Amino acid sequence: MYTVLAGGVGAARFLRGLLEVVPAREVVAIVNVGDDLTRFGLRICPDLDSITYWLAGVVHPEQQWGRAEESHVVASELERFGHEPWFTLGDRDLATHLHRTSRMGEGAPLSTVTGEVTDAFGLDLRLLPATDDAVETRITTSDGRDLHFQEYWVRERGRPEVTSVQLAGAGSARPAPGVVEALIDAEAVLVAPSNPVVSIGTILEVPGIRAALHTTPVPVVGVSPIVGGTVVRGMAHRLLPAIDTEVSARGVAEHYREWLDGWVIDNVDAAQHADVEALGLSCAVTDTMMDDVEVAAELARTCLYLARSMR
Amino acid sequence: MYTVLAGGVGAARFLRGLLEVVPAREVVAIVNVGDDLTRFGLRICPDLDSITYWLAGVVHPEQQWGRAEESHVVASELERFGHEPWFTLGDRDLATHLHRTSRMGEGAPLSTVTGEVTDAFGLDLRLLPATDDAVETRITTSDGRDLHFQEYWVRERGRPEVTSVQLAGAGSARPAPGVVEALIDAEAVLVAPSNPVVSIGTILEVPGIRAALHTTPVPVVGVSPIVGGTVVRGMAHRLLPAIDTEVSARGVAEHYREWLDGWVIDNVDAAQHADVEALGLSCAVTDTMMDDVEVAAELARTCLYLARSMR
Repeated sequence: MYTVLAGGVGAARFLRGLLEVVPAREVVAIVNVGDDLTRFGLRICPDLDSITYWLAGVVHPEQQWGRAEESHVVASELERFGHEPWFTLGDRDLATHLHRTSRMGEGAPLSTVTGEVTDAFGLDLRLLPATDDAVETRITTSDGRDLHFQEYWVRERGRPEVTSVQLAGAGSARPAPGVVEALIDAEAVLVAPSNPVVSIGTILEVPGIRAALHTTPVPVVGVSPIVGGTVVRGMAHRLLPAIDTEVSARGVAEHYREWLDGWVIDNVDAAQHADVEALGLSCAVTDTMMDDVEVAAELARTCLYLARSMR
Repeated sequence: MYTVLAGGVGAARFLRGLLEVVPAREVVAIVNVGDDLTRFGLRICPDLDSITYWLAGVVHPEQQWGRAEESHVVASELERFGHEPWFTLGDRDLATHLHRTSRMGEGAPLSTVTGEVTDAFGLDLRLLPATDDAVETRITTSDGRDLHFQEYWVRERGRPEVTSVQLAGAGSARPAPGVVEALIDAEAVLVAPSNPVVSIGTILEVPGIRAALHTTPVPVVGVSPIVGGTVVRGMAHRLLPAIDTEVSARGVAEHYREWLDGWVIDNVDAAQHADVEALGLSCAVTDTMMDDVEVAAELARTCLYLARSMR
């Protein structure tokens, strides 16, 4: 079993590469659910869905999230009712939310429903939400507002300055069934190049997950989401200062160092190799820009090689 | 104010005629909600929506329910998840359900949300759900099953033999705000040619509504849903035996007689005129087949004329 800590699109691209290298049935992704939200009574899980659509080959090719060949009949009708259309709901995508909401309304936990969704899309890997419990990433802005992550990122386009990030509900949340086992019993734990604050950070906030990373006997190897001093996509460069972390491959490694064993950085950051090793981590340098599946597969191989070198 | 007791399509066609004759702002329709159901967590109100779509001119012209120019992207995607597609959910129609579910989730009563929906469709008449409380029409079949009305009618295509009909939840339901006033303070109360059992009957099951019809000082005039010994559409002919009511214009008048003052029957049933008057009711005979708006308008005029003749 290969276990991956995963956010959304960056993780999806990384997983697509990993699936070229190891059998899908041996891959477990522990996925951030802090971004999840309820709109119109529907439970929406952007990271779980982005990964599912990517790996099923049905992701929208330009957006890199949502469904390909998507239509927006429902969303355009909703405007009649005066709803702010800030969160895009495509028609095909809506079906996933309807299934999920319906099943959760019957009492099925998110982890069970997630298995149904990946089955419906013909995927053999296992996606596990970090928790089945209600958590949500709250963003405090410098003008004193408390926003849901999606209000900050989608509605306000990530413009407000962020002073802190909290996973609300984390106090009483437990890891979803299988999560801790997947961290303890794996061949290796890999950390996708996802946002260290609002993807990986929020996974670690679920009590028991950080502790499992500390105590796991298997190597933990991550891929830097920071390349050349900035993000490949997303807003990690704007959130890292809120957690006093330097926006660099080395800075994120330092932030992760207590539970991290190996760190894979991009060729453009090769000069930081020694700095990373000085943190007590093994370091590999390769191409991390996963523009095609071959680069992603090679990156996954590098991660596994680094992990195996530490066993 | 002209108040109409209303089911779905038959009532919509009748209301369309009435709106040709009196100003829309003076029309209140009290609408059956026993057919309402929850699918995928969405609250669906078939009678309220059929009337809304009809009167807004956006109803599907062949189906006579649902939206014109409808697509079914969401529904076809839902099949991926193995859902029985027995209850059609069109994309445009879904937007109404999403708005309603969202607002009710915020605590808005159905009557408030119904006003928002009719506003969104530019309607000036007032639609009132019979009740804001949770009720549902349950059908007991001769093979001993207890079905939601939609399971009986849509999923099982009305095939099972029905032994009884109950409005579950009626015991603790109250009329929606404005319903009793609309029955007491109107110029006339009109009963649309809707199903006497599962449309008009379920409205009357809400405590206080039947009593208001008994005590209202204004004339109550209905249109027979039975023409030539059968229904114009729907399944009233199969349900009337379950309430020991003859499937005829006269039979329904007899069933309603305790609170009814006038009864409008179709030309083909002209021979029953004396039988209806023998029940102590005023009776008018006209064309009740509302194939176009002119016939519907003339039918409405006949109802109002009959009502005025009794004041």
